[in-house]
Amino acid sequence: MSAEELKLSCPAPKEGGAEITLAHGSGGRVMHRLIRDVFQAAFQDPELKRAHDGAFLASERTGLAFTTDSFVVRPLFFPGGDIGSLAVHGTVNDLAMCGAEPLYLSCGFILEEGLPLETLQRVALSMAKAAKEAGARVVTGDTKVVERGKGDGIYINTAGIGRRLVEPAPEPARVRAGDAILVSGDIGAHGAAILSVREGLTFETALQSDSAAVWPQVKALLDAGVELRCLRDLTRGGLATTLNEIAASANIGLSLDESAVPVRPETAAACEVFGLEPLYMACEGRFAAFVPEAQAKKALGILGSGALVGRAVERHPGEVRMTTRIGVERILDMLSGEQLPRIC
Amino acid sequence: MSAEELKLSCPAPKEGGAEITLAHGSGGRVMHRLIRDVFQAAFQDPELKRAHDGAFLASERTGLAFTTDSFVVRPLFFPGGDIGSLAVHGTVNDLAMCGAEPLYLSCGFILEEGLPLETLQRVALSMAKAAKEAGARVVTGDTKVVERGKGDGIYINTAGIGRRLVEPAPEPARVRAGDAILVSGDIGAHGAAILSVREGLTFETALQSDSAAVWPQVKALLDAGVELRCLRDLTRGGLATTLNEIAASANIGLSLDESAVPVRPETAAACEVFGLEPLYMACEGRFAAFVPEAQAKKALGILGSGALVGRAVERHPGEVRMTTRIGVERILDMLSGEQLPRIC
Repeated sequence: MSAEELKLSCPAPKEGGAEITLAHGSGGRVMHRLIRDVFQAAFQDPELKRAHDGAFLASERTGLAFTTDSFVVRPLFFPGGDIGSLAVHGTVNDLAMCGAEPLYLSCGFILEEGLPLETLQRVALSMAKAAKEAGARVVTGDTKVVERGKGDGIYINTAGIGRRLVEPAPEPARVRAGDAILVSGDIGAHGAAILSVREGLTFETALQSDSAAVWPQVKALLDAGVELRCLRDLTRGGLATTLNEIAASANIGLSLDESAVPVRPETAAACEVFGLEPLYMACEGRFAAFVPEAQAKKALGILGSGALVGRAVERHPGEVRMTTRIGVERILDMLSGEQLPRIC
Repeated sequence: MSAEELKLSCPAPKEGGAEITLAHGSGGRVMHRLIRDVFQAAFQDPELKRAHDGAFLASERTGLAFTTDSFVVRPLFFPGGDIGSLAVHGTVNDLAMCGAEPLYLSCGFILEEGLPLETLQRVALSMAKAAKEAGARVVTGDTKVVERGKGDGIYINTAGIGRRLVEPAPEPARVRAGDAILVSGDIGAHGAAILSVREGLTFETALQSDSAAVWPQVKALLDAGVELRCLRDLTRGGLATTLNEIAASANIGLSLDESAVPVRPETAAACEVFGLEPLYMACEGRFAAFVPEAQAKKALGILGSGALVGRAVERHPGEVRMTTRIGVERILDMLSGEQLPRIC
């Protein structure tokens, strides 16, 4: 694409040329454009075009999946987790969403000069614990230090390698009209927990991040013979953005029933205080699974706290429509702009 | 280790507790302590204990190597390269040092709000070009954005997967007394180029970074049947630090002949201006190879611009000693403190 076209897809600052805004990291529409216009355009790789959470290393006989994620969450420690456990969960969950068992992790630290060493040690121990629980080994790493004011304590990148156990791979192209859309648990708690601690709010019920490794749930579904047509974790942009990605990618309509979406009362309360919508709030231990209608009940039995929240439909291809609590159907769009920066 | 012991190994700031300094990112002694005391202690993985540039995924039949590196170089563009090409070269070179052919790369961007989009596009295109030249595919990625003043334009993490072609793996434990120490070309140009552009100096001869993928050279040595006992790229901390790592890790003595070490006149001139030592300057396209004495000549013929700079010896195990230009033997220590921050 030309520089002119590139500029059109990105906000222009007062001085002239287009520049990066916080919305480019939101997981929403602006970030998707950036990925398409800059990264996919530059790297031109079929694996990137699949726009999944990870890459399939198809030429390897072992069938490996490969993924990466950087973590810039603030604060570094929050109710229910910290940047270390989150950096493990985020990457092992991306592997799980590829239908792959997490095996190996790398970790790259970018530390800000002046960071208390004890903080780094706490984060490293938390990563180690999370990796052990997820059954993954941290096998290689790197450390860089930047001057005071050029970072924010700790940034972490984790890349992961997993062994693919689902064949064919779960992906949007496999979704069929009639498929049930399940979520693996209540949504929005991670985003709400981060926001509350940032704003210094406390609620009667302690709001905790849902940050967790989801591979055990995916594995249980596989072991029970559930056909996993598409899997996506509900991170930046939340359930609404994830469903929009899948609808667009598969060019299929998705129909969501708002009243069926599980939201814990404390998450709902926090969202109400801040005027935010739980459907766009990030989760870090929840995923959406598309399964054949006939297997929905069995899958829900395995997920325990999950819910059937909608269906793939033949109508309105590429669009997500939601039946609201008062029975009105409306288009549920992708997040545009930035709801809550540095959530992960 | 206890918190007390941890503190002892790190500088204590005025306020009390130990904290991260720029030296923790230097590649020298302080960084080695941090890796040992915090990361190896937390993650407890045998692959990390090997302290190589990458991990061997031994349980996979394909014999893969896995590595990660974050890049925080400033400025983003410098003579002979930019943060994008450097992020590719650094990681494919870590794979090459494992005796592995680079196959797949991930890239994780941490962007600062306000970055001109055109800058990002230039960097992405440079990465794509470098990856193509190195024969590696960028197959997965991630983008995060941090607020103005919480980053410095662009930070990049690249993780890489390669196919191991050298068995047994090149590593310090395989070095034997009598082995020849080769360097693959002139040293210190990357560090000198970065420093010169930062300080706004220009020299009569344009000083260019040596940033490049070294796999073609390693592959040529392999194809010619040269036994590669140990390979290390000469990045942070330079040749002196690399040799110290190998001497300590293998508990073998290394003897270096200063006059045999190739340094280009413009690199030497820049080092002299800034009072720095070329032996500690980072290269980003140079490596040290330990080969059997009898194969040294053949290997040099293949490397072309390389040089035989020293030998492994039975004397002074764990120490590097250098015969200086005036014929005096002295201990060549590891870099302690920080010579030049954010070189890569």
